[in-house]
Amino acid sequence: MQIPAGELLKNINNPDDLKKLKPEQLHLVCDELRQYIIDVVSIHGGHFAASLGVVELSVALHYVYNTPFDQLVWDVGHQAYGHKILTGRRDEFITNRKYKGLSGFPKRSESEYDTFGVGHSSTSISAALGMAIAAKIKGENRKSVAVIGDGSMTAGMAFEAMNHAGITDADMLIVLNDNCMSIDPNVGALREYLTDITTSPAYNKFKDELWDLLGKLPGKKISRGVAHKIGEGLKSTLNSNSNLFEALNIRYFGPIDGHNITKLVDTLNDLKKIPGPKILHIVTVKGKGYELAEKDQTKWHAPGLFDKVTGEIKKKVFNTPQPPKYQDVFGHTIVELAEQNPLIMGITPAMPSGSSLKFMMDKMPARALDVGICEQHAVTLSAGLATQGMRVFCNIYSSFMQRSYDQVVHDIAIQKLPVVLCLDRAGLVGEDGPTHHGAYDIAYFRCIPNMIISAPMNEQELRNLMFTAQSDNNKYPFVIRYPRGEGVMPEWQTPMQTVEIGKGRKINDGEKVAILSIGHPGNFVQSAIASLKQKGIHPAHYDMRFVKPLDTVLLTEVLEKFDKIITIEDGTVVGGFGSAVLEFANENGYKPTVKIMGIPDQFIEHGTLKELQAECHYDTNAIIEAVEILVGDTSKNRVELFG
Amino acid sequence: MQIPAGELLKNINNPDDLKKLKPEQLHLVCDELRQYIIDVVSIHGGHFAASLGVVELSVALHYVYNTPFDQLVWDVGHQAYGHKILTGRRDEFITNRKYKGLSGFPKRSESEYDTFGVGHSSTSISAALGMAIAAKIKGENRKSVAVIGDGSMTAGMAFEAMNHAGITDADMLIVLNDNCMSIDPNVGALREYLTDITTSPAYNKFKDELWDLLGKLPGKKISRGVAHKIGEGLKSTLNSNSNLFEALNIRYFGPIDGHNITKLVDTLNDLKKIPGPKILHIVTVKGKGYELAEKDQTKWHAPGLFDKVTGEIKKKVFNTPQPPKYQDVFGHTIVELAEQNPLIMGITPAMPSGSSLKFMMDKMPARALDVGICEQHAVTLSAGLATQGMRVFCNIYSSFMQRSYDQVVHDIAIQKLPVVLCLDRAGLVGEDGPTHHGAYDIAYFRCIPNMIISAPMNEQELRNLMFTAQSDNNKYPFVIRYPRGEGVMPEWQTPMQTVEIGKGRKINDGEKVAILSIGHPGNFVQSAIASLKQKGIHPAHYDMRFVKPLDTVLLTEVLEKFDKIITIEDGTVVGGFGSAVLEFANENGYKPTVKIMGIPDQFIEHGTLKELQAECHYDTNAIIEAVEILVGDTSKNRVELFG
Repeated sequence: MQIPAGELLKNINNPDDLKKLKPEQLHLVCDELRQYIIDVVSIHGGHFAASLGVVELSVALHYVYNTPFDQLVWDVGHQAYGHKILTGRRDEFITNRKYKGLSGFPKRSESEYDTFGVGHSSTSISAALGMAIAAKIKGENRKSVAVIGDGSMTAGMAFEAMNHAGITDADMLIVLNDNCMSIDPNVGALREYLTDITTSPAYNKFKDELWDLLGKLPGKKISRGVAHKIGEGLKSTLNSNSNLFEALNIRYFGPIDGHNITKLVDTLNDLKKIPGPKILHIVTVKGKGYELAEKDQTKWHAPGLFDKVTGEIKKKVFNTPQPPKYQDVFGHTIVELAEQNPLIMGITPAMPSGSSLKFMMDKMPARALDVGICEQHAVTLSAGLATQGMRVFCNIYSSFMQRSYDQVVHDIAIQKLPVVLCLDRAGLVGEDGPTHHGAYDIAYFRCIPNMIISAPMNEQELRNLMFTAQSDNNKYPFVIRYPRGEGVMPEWQTPMQTVEIGKGRKINDGEKVAILSIGHPGNFVQSAIASLKQKGIHPAHYDMRFVKPLDTVLLTEVLEKFDKIITIEDGTVVGGFGSAVLEFANENGYKPTVKIMGIPDQFIEHGTLKELQAECHYDTNAIIEAVEILVGDTSKNRVELFG
Repeated sequence: MQIPAGELLKNINNPDDLKKLKPEQLHLVCDELRQYIIDVVSIHGGHFAASLGVVELSVALHYVYNTPFDQLVWDVGHQAYGHKILTGRRDEFITNRKYKGLSGFPKRSESEYDTFGVGHSSTSISAALGMAIAAKIKGENRKSVAVIGDGSMTAGMAFEAMNHAGITDADMLIVLNDNCMSIDPNVGALREYLTDITTSPAYNKFKDELWDLLGKLPGKKISRGVAHKIGEGLKSTLNSNSNLFEALNIRYFGPIDGHNITKLVDTLNDLKKIPGPKILHIVTVKGKGYELAEKDQTKWHAPGLFDKVTGEIKKKVFNTPQPPKYQDVFGHTIVELAEQNPLIMGITPAMPSGSSLKFMMDKMPARALDVGICEQHAVTLSAGLATQGMRVFCNIYSSFMQRSYDQVVHDIAIQKLPVVLCLDRAGLVGEDGPTHHGAYDIAYFRCIPNMIISAPMNEQELRNLMFTAQSDNNKYPFVIRYPRGEGVMPEWQTPMQTVEIGKGRKINDGEKVAILSIGHPGNFVQSAIASLKQKGIHPAHYDMRFVKPLDTVLLTEVLEKFDKIITIEDGTVVGGFGSAVLEFANENGYKPTVKIMGIPDQFIEHGTLKELQAECHYDTNAIIEAVEILVGDTSKNRVELFG
């Protein structure tokens, strides 16, 4: 294709266009792709460093493989921006992560090139193996490729998939994208093992030898014998630690430089001809090509908007003190508590920055542990610690807690161990979309015996709940769910006090309608009440604090007085807090009309929190509307109320 | 202790008594312990082969370690009978797995020697690591030991725990009890790797050399230098594949013969003095000492009652044809369907016998896969297969499905892939108790969008639901939950037909009270109705078939006609089917009194199904009672009805 440098990318509308280029043009495509990602993300936001690190890999994979016939699965998907841009979504990429725009992750409904929706880590090998096995059964000569980071490799399901893959003849390539990072630096023995490989004296020697070996191969054809020779050649130049993957019967190749596009293309071309499950270990730099990102990879994982020239990250400027993030309230409060109570420990599965447990990790590293991307282990480790009398705060995002559901049931709840489960990012999370919304935790934990489930309405309540959960008063597993982002109290460092477990609080007296809220939507209720006051409507408001145990005294008081009730929660309306109120009313002979507000029974796409809360009809306006309907004639307005 | 052989065990009331014996007496204790297990299990039932395989290990661990100060965690726990007998529960052992008797698993509330409750696999390393880390922080010189089988090692959370352990200095020993078996033969690349180690030419040489080396050690004392020498000695005699564990920075020792009590005791004594995380690989025979069990380990995993002399397994004899197990209906039906539909595949995580998928594995091995103990991988593999148009039946026990909750949400439900999730052993399971009851699946799946959730009332319904789920009519994830054990239809091989998705059926017209059932408890309802008829009471009965989507037409018909409703399900009453009915009634302006029958909000212990169903008040008698109260004056009888 005779296209001047600098205009290659704008002429690539799909991988077929890419394939028309000569190999020596590919590094130019990489430059343009990298620049385009910098241009767009700096202005429109999104995940940044991960995609920069796999620019060459993205180009090489689509150049070598016959996508979408061949199946390409990106683990997690933060790194798939280049893939999206190369597969027909270049111009649309400016809508990335915006309401109704492109998803920040690969998504089947978005493109036939997105073979598998991702978001949570470590699913790619299982998915690609399924695709490869199906191809065998259907007699299709289809290749499957999983691209997985060294961070994602620490989650057990990646190991499970390799353990299975190793006894199959599935035509699958695993590309291990080794950049030493999760969002925070990757931890664990596997990480140290991979470092051993890449820093061993054999590595540099190897890099040249591999290249020589591949350089000698005749054109595009490769015999089984030669393939075998490649394998043996690699093995002999590597230290014996490469056995970790070979022990699982997966042929190991690498490590190679993941930023050398020519080597990548040639290596992938050769590997395509080697049957069975195999792994290619590539070494990349997260943030590659943007110097600041290379230097501070955690900060530049998803930096927000920035000036691409100066690297200045744009922050809103306020004239008055702003409320803190709930995350920082958690992070500072656990330090405060741990300084008083030597039995307190903090556990995070790979989210020290995201959860702000890093504050404790800095101050008391022996008692605050990042255990890697492994929610299952994190929970059962916490249970093990709790058997010895430790008071553990295990902090896991609500949607990731789905990964350790069995461990909570089996190791914590059945044994009634008083582990504190801090469910960060509970409720809608915004731009990360359906894989990350913490919509289900109230429902999935409410059905489990022995669980205490609470949600603070504000920062002070969060602190009080944390204080209560670690105290000797608490003998049960104790869930505290709180949302992503800012709270409502600029002056949040209030003295902590014990909350009576299972007790809510009345915030407003009122008439005709009672609103029962759990967690931060209580603040929407307060706004709604302020507006309704102008119209002479005065609903009562109760912050229930606990979904389980319910405050039955307070609820009885409410049900005696009101037959029109609104419940509101930042969670699914199926089986959640609202259903708990219905169950209680039914058992106690009350027959109220209950409007349950929360996340409807469908997967909610991405957007800003405001956009999504409006879509889900539980923002301030929706509350005002519901109250107005209820104070009118409900029987006539049933359709209006319940849709 | 001067006690004649044959009477050693009866004088061991705790490990202190065991420690009084001379090392040369231990093999006699092993003989007696093995015989006692055979005696009791043959008469009283229970898991058999696993505990026979670790008789020597159980004796050695309690002889060497200072239990219960030192913490001993048994993975899964089927193998812990010897441990229980040695730790004060010898005589009580005849109540094993009986209602109000000993649990079949280690259980914290049962004994201070049971440091961690188990049942599901692969939790032991995480738990023991937590204990070891707590000991470090508290400055206690406490040892932790995890005993884990090679089957349990295939689950990802074991890998997660090792990945973490390898970067700690926790004083923890992992005993890898390698017997090549889960309940069925263990599968996967790890299994092949372990076989490589134990069958390598170095192994026999190694066994002698290790022994020589240990034999030369001076008495009970061992220097760090000598410890190091042991380690190096072992390494040099093993093939380099031992790097799988060493790569994770866990010192590897073994393999050694797990039935040589003297070697075990001496090795454990030496390993006690080696700091940090370490693994001892022992090779044992499941069923050791009972020849038939050694030869057919799957059959003798939990054989039921048997004649210990002849080995004849006692089976009830019937004069009439009996209903089949639901498991066998599943197993035969999937073969029948797969013979018609070439896209059908079957997946089981290590339960080919338990689920009866073995029938399909025998007939069409390429399309029916045992993927090892790895529910997470099993589900996402199924999702990957489904993206290629395969119709996958992924069969997982309800309580084990908790392990793959995130994968169902993230990989199947969000992507709306029509995988069929067969939830075996849904509802109460009987003797396995709280870790194994499938009590929560209706509640934990009902809150997830896109899910179809069904439960057959009998064998014919199971076949029809399977037929429907694999047909092109179905575009959604499709859960079919059914219980452990026998159904109700001796003549079950009826022609299959499509069921309309989301449609229930009326079984009985009636008056005053409507009973809505889901799944097999519909049969209890039928029995109750037969009894009530005698008293002139005629409740209506509807088999709803689907929890989601609910049959709103049928429900509306019911709610228009009845204001007294009973719902019954073999699952938790919190957030389950009953709550779904309440939610529907509330949204549609109906105000019935609803008695929700099912598993109450507490963990249910073990016992026979009949005992537990009675305890949970949803057996036939409980239904009769509830109907009688409801046809009386409900307002007066609220306490009677709701307790």
